[in-house]
Amino acid sequence: MNAAVLEKIGKRGGRGARRQARSTINTTMLPALRRKLSPVEPMDGDQIERIDRASMDILEEVGVVFRDEQALADWKAAGADVRGERVHLDRNLVRELIASIPESFTYHARNPANNLPFGNDHSIFVPMTGAPFLRDLEDKRRMPTLDDLANFHKLAYMLPALHSTAHHIVEPMDHVVAHRHLRITYSSMKHSDKTFMGMTTSGRNAEDVMEMCAILFGEEFMENHAVTTGNCNGNSPLVWDEAMLSAMRAFCRRNQPVLCSPFVLGGANTPASVPAAVAQLNAEALSGLAYTQVVRKGCPAIYGHYLSTVSMKSGAPMAGTPEIALMNFMIGQMARYYRVPWRTSNTLGGAKTFDAQAGYESASTMMAVLMAGANYIWHSAGWNEAGMHCSMAKFVVDAEQCAMGYRMAEGIHWDDFDEALAAVRDVGPGGHYLGHPHTQARFQEAFFMPDRFDNNSVEQWIAEGSQEITERALKHARRLLEVYEEPKLDDAVDEALRDYIARREREIPAVDALNTEH
Amino acid sequence: MNAAVLEKIGKRGGRGARRQARSTINTTMLPALRRKLSPVEPMDGDQIERIDRASMDILEEVGVVFRDEQALADWKAAGADVRGERVHLDRNLVRELIASIPESFTYHARNPANNLPFGNDHSIFVPMTGAPFLRDLEDKRRMPTLDDLANFHKLAYMLPALHSTAHHIVEPMDHVVAHRHLRITYSSMKHSDKTFMGMTTSGRNAEDVMEMCAILFGEEFMENHAVTTGNCNGNSPLVWDEAMLSAMRAFCRRNQPVLCSPFVLGGANTPASVPAAVAQLNAEALSGLAYTQVVRKGCPAIYGHYLSTVSMKSGAPMAGTPEIALMNFMIGQMARYYRVPWRTSNTLGGAKTFDAQAGYESASTMMAVLMAGANYIWHSAGWNEAGMHCSMAKFVVDAEQCAMGYRMAEGIHWDDFDEALAAVRDVGPGGHYLGHPHTQARFQEAFFMPDRFDNNSVEQWIAEGSQEITERALKHARRLLEVYEEPKLDDAVDEALRDYIARREREIPAVDALNTEH
Repeated sequence: MNAAVLEKIGKRGGRGARRQARSTINTTMLPALRRKLSPVEPMDGDQIERIDRASMDILEEVGVVFRDEQALADWKAAGADVRGERVHLDRNLVRELIASIPESFTYHARNPANNLPFGNDHSIFVPMTGAPFLRDLEDKRRMPTLDDLANFHKLAYMLPALHSTAHHIVEPMDHVVAHRHLRITYSSMKHSDKTFMGMTTSGRNAEDVMEMCAILFGEEFMENHAVTTGNCNGNSPLVWDEAMLSAMRAFCRRNQPVLCSPFVLGGANTPASVPAAVAQLNAEALSGLAYTQVVRKGCPAIYGHYLSTVSMKSGAPMAGTPEIALMNFMIGQMARYYRVPWRTSNTLGGAKTFDAQAGYESASTMMAVLMAGANYIWHSAGWNEAGMHCSMAKFVVDAEQCAMGYRMAEGIHWDDFDEALAAVRDVGPGGHYLGHPHTQARFQEAFFMPDRFDNNSVEQWIAEGSQEITERALKHARRLLEVYEEPKLDDAVDEALRDYIARREREIPAVDALNTEH
Repeated sequence: MNAAVLEKIGKRGGRGARRQARSTINTTMLPALRRKLSPVEPMDGDQIERIDRASMDILEEVGVVFRDEQALADWKAAGADVRGERVHLDRNLVRELIASIPESFTYHARNPANNLPFGNDHSIFVPMTGAPFLRDLEDKRRMPTLDDLANFHKLAYMLPALHSTAHHIVEPMDHVVAHRHLRITYSSMKHSDKTFMGMTTSGRNAEDVMEMCAILFGEEFMENHAVTTGNCNGNSPLVWDEAMLSAMRAFCRRNQPVLCSPFVLGGANTPASVPAAVAQLNAEALSGLAYTQVVRKGCPAIYGHYLSTVSMKSGAPMAGTPEIALMNFMIGQMARYYRVPWRTSNTLGGAKTFDAQAGYESASTMMAVLMAGANYIWHSAGWNEAGMHCSMAKFVVDAEQCAMGYRMAEGIHWDDFDEALAAVRDVGPGGHYLGHPHTQARFQEAFFMPDRFDNNSVEQWIAEGSQEITERALKHARRLLEVYEEPKLDDAVDEALRDYIARREREIPAVDALNTEH
């Protein structure tokens, strides 16, 4: 039982049974991962420069469309060659602009114990977002509500390897679209004291998120501290639209980091070539990153992408494929070349249920993005059905997989090597280690024991009801939700947030339309 | 449709429907993978030497038990310090002995088109073996028969990324143990013309396998060519037994390679420390490898291991855990340090069905062993339930995963980079690539499209019967078996093999006992 769990029980009391249950579940957040394994780097220096050259040629000669008056005006003022909506960016201008992006920063949570060092060799795991459906605690596929979203935020809060509650993990369909960003933001803030993401569905919505962050963290604090992250998708090939750009501006003006994420369906909106797709994606990401510095020089920003390949047979996006691994390795190399922290997507997949396909897809991607050395590992829990649903069962299993990936990426622990070797002499040929004092003392930290996997005999498994992983995982999710305790918001802050939401809901017409981002 | 498939249809005829079905299934074996990605290497030069030093200290000071009169006599003759059953091996003697192990060789198949370059940056995928149960074409768990084994050999023959049919993928329980090695070997030889493994359940059984190989390949050919591989498990910690050692001798005397594979249950028969477990395993593997060179200097041999960690909670072996990945990375470094080709295990897992657990475990392991740079990737298809059953459904899915891992490990294809970049200019911002001539020409080779994954919409998936991956995979397995055509053995060879088996079955008493190896 860890200190945080003990402390919680001590402080808050509650019924004996719940206390007992809580005491066996560790909910202390793991610090931001510090990777010790060197990333997989399939390109040599010349090849990195070849991609860089190709991307810069695209930016200069093909240009990027900014479908937004303000951005076009900003680019003109910054000295870019603007022809209609198309902005041709000189490579020197791009290099000069991205040079002011911080290589690392601290990502702040309302509980300072959950602050995250970000960039360089640090990685954080952020759950999926944007699902218009869920598979619920009964594994039933249906439309999500705000209560379902709250449950996901509670789970994200309690699962140690998740560093954030993100934002709209599932879309709360019981609220009108125009008001949803307010409720989503409040849910993230209220049910967890980890970091969270801010909605970027429009410039005005992003402004609302910034106002709510100002209530929670203080206006002045935000000026010098990253307290949320927003995602801005580019429309590949080579287009940024008004909704994303205005949201980007809202974040950058407040010095808050955005993920500049081209939305790539390899082969459909990129060339059918791994390195050429990366060259295009890199050009797109650089154009967004450069624009963040036009809006506010020195503002933190994150090199992003959403990355799938499409099936030539069905046109559907695919995940867990070899090219996605390779592209992640390459993008990691490019982001490090430019000294900008970068975001990737974890656990993507197209399975319709939480079957073996989902497991293969998720684990292949997890290994690839860890080996790629990604900093912001988004969509790390729950993603299924090409993002169309978030699965409660998969959510808790993915979170444990993150903990396992975390352990792997930490590398080898040499600290007790000599004592462990002494055990070899003690035990000798044909002996057993389980009773040895070193084993007793060090086993738990030496070898990860996944709780979501069943490794018992088939006889034991049958005796326990022949439960596949979905059933076992849902049982765990229910148990977590039963013992959840809210990390209380300051009452005055809570009231101010509620007042803000009430006022804005009166002001904003209840027009309905669905926006998601990836 | 590839040339081999066309040729088969042209030569063999058959009914129209079967011909039609075959024409859409590619069964041409992929050549041995040549890895282009640099392996993940978590140790620096000093740390490698630290493991080497620790292993050599164990060999010199603790020693290794050889429970076998002949081996003890051989070691005495070789100048080792033999005290009872315990052999203390001087590091200079070990280094001198392993220096004569070939760094690479060709692994021969009866069809020379399926020969495999082996060692260095080459990798081969070999299916699982040793399962006492199967999950069959109806996903029913039951005892396997010789016909079931034949079906697995047929599938291994037809699945392009599998380079071998191995041997007893499942145990043919309808035959007495004492005769089984004969039937298993014949099944491997008859149903496929890829490489196969030889049984090592005892010295005498291994001799039978050698005799059957001599019938198939010729006595003289075997003297200079590897035509099979045998696995010899060590009993960790630090014991080799008579059955394994006598089988090892049978193979080495005929110049055939064995896998020297300590059987590691991390924490139970090793210290609870990743580097110390590797140091012990390395000592064990080196002692086996050194002995192969005592038996026959210059004989090919393979650094092996079976590697799991055990759960402190249940005592059960675990797979897909972070430490298994780390240990694989380290073992790869040690094998390369000694310049000996090495074997690992793929797709291990403890799931009782082909559920998401199985998918996570398999994919995590596959990524780890590819990144570790393993040469002989055993247990690459079908493994489930800690090796207690081989799953037909998982077998065909794992085989496709191998093809995907293969593609990833090949690295980036730069050959059409400039043409692909030209497409970026043609298409421009906001355009579509699917109709572009470069996309049409290069899509298939640019992006892997997994057939065993469903990436359609949920509506389409429901319309097709809401089939999870198990059902879809079994359909594919049935289809493969329906269109299977035997790569005919030469009639005289076939008759000689049958005669040999008949004679030996008359000679060998039908005593029953179960042996498996991993």
